[in-house]
Amino acid sequence: MKIFRAVAISVLSLAAVTAAAQNFKPEDQIKHRQASMSLIARSNGALNSMVRGDVPFNKEVAGKHADVIANLAAWVGPSFGPGTDKGALTKADPKIWTEGDKWKAALDKLVTETGKLPAASADLATLTTQFAEVGKTCKFCHDNYRMRDFRY
Amino acid sequence: MKIFRAVAISVLSLAAVTAAAQNFKPEDQIKHRQASMSLIARSNGALNSMVRGDVPFNKEVAGKHADVIANLAAWVGPSFGPGTDKGALTKADPKIWTEGDKWKAALDKLVTETGKLPAASADLATLTTQFAEVGKTCKFCHDNYRMRDFRY
Repeated sequence: MKIFRAVAISVLSLAAVTAAAQNFKPEDQIKHRQASMSLIARSNGALNSMVRGDVPFNKEVAGKHADVIANLAAWVGPSFGPGTDKGALTKADPKIWTEGDKWKAALDKLVTETGKLPAASADLATLTTQFAEVGKTCKFCHDNYRMRDFRY
Repeated sequence: MKIFRAVAISVLSLAAVTAAAQNFKPEDQIKHRQASMSLIARSNGALNSMVRGDVPFNKEVAGKHADVIANLAAWVGPSFGPGTDKGALTKADPKIWTEGDKWKAALDKLVTETGKLPAASADLATLTTQFAEVGKTCKFCHDNYRMRDFRY
C-alpha cells in the first residue's frame, strides 16, 4: 500500500514538475539541463571516489552529494520539453523527441533509482550497491540519447 | 536542545562539504558554482512566480524547487575555495578571499535560511515569509561580492 502511494505521489509530482519546467524558454531549458548534468557529474564523481576507495567514505558528504543527485535528476526529464531539441548547442539526440515511451521509461527509472540514493548513502555497502544501479540508468540514456558532439 | 544539535550538525557537515569541494580543480569549482547559481536562479524564479501570484501555488512543485535551492546553497560557499579567485571567467569579487569572517557569516546565513525553505513551502503564507528571508541572504552577497562584469 505504501509503495503504491509512493509511486502515485512520484508520478503526480513528476507531472507537476514537468508542467513547471515547460514554463521556461527553450534555450533556458537547454541551459538548465546542462547545468544540472554538470552538477550531477560533480556529485557522481565524488561518490565514485568513495565507492572506489580513492577517498575515505564520509556519510555527511555522501549524503549531500546524493541529495543533489536525487533533486536534480527530477529536473532532467522536464528540461527536455517540447521545442528544446534545438535552439542552443546541445548533445541531445533528436530521438528523445520521437521515442516518447522508451524515453519516458528511462526517465522514470532514473528518478526511481536516484531517489533511493540518499537513504543508501548511510553506509558504504548500501551506497556501493545503489550507486551501481544509478550508474546503469545514467549509462542507458548516455548510450542511447546523448550524441558524441554538440550540434545546433 | 534540538536546535543546538541541528546547528552543530550543520557546522560539521559544512566543514566536510568544504573539504570535499576543495578536491576539485579551481576551474571546475568555478564552473560548479556558476552551474549552481544558474539552477538556484531557475528555482528562485519559479518560487517567485508563485509568491507574486503569477502562477498558482503548487505545493509539490514549490517543494521540489525549495529542495534544489537548499541542496545547492550548501555548495555555494565550498566552491569559492582557495585559488578560485581566478582561472576562468568569473564575477566573484576578490574581496571574498580577503574578508574571511564577513564572507563566512554571510554563507552561514544563506545555508540557514535556505535550509528552512523546504518545510516552509508547505503553504503559500509560510513560503512567502521564508522566501523573503532567503532573498535577503542572496541580495547581501550579490550586493557585496558579485561584480557587475566578468573578469579573468
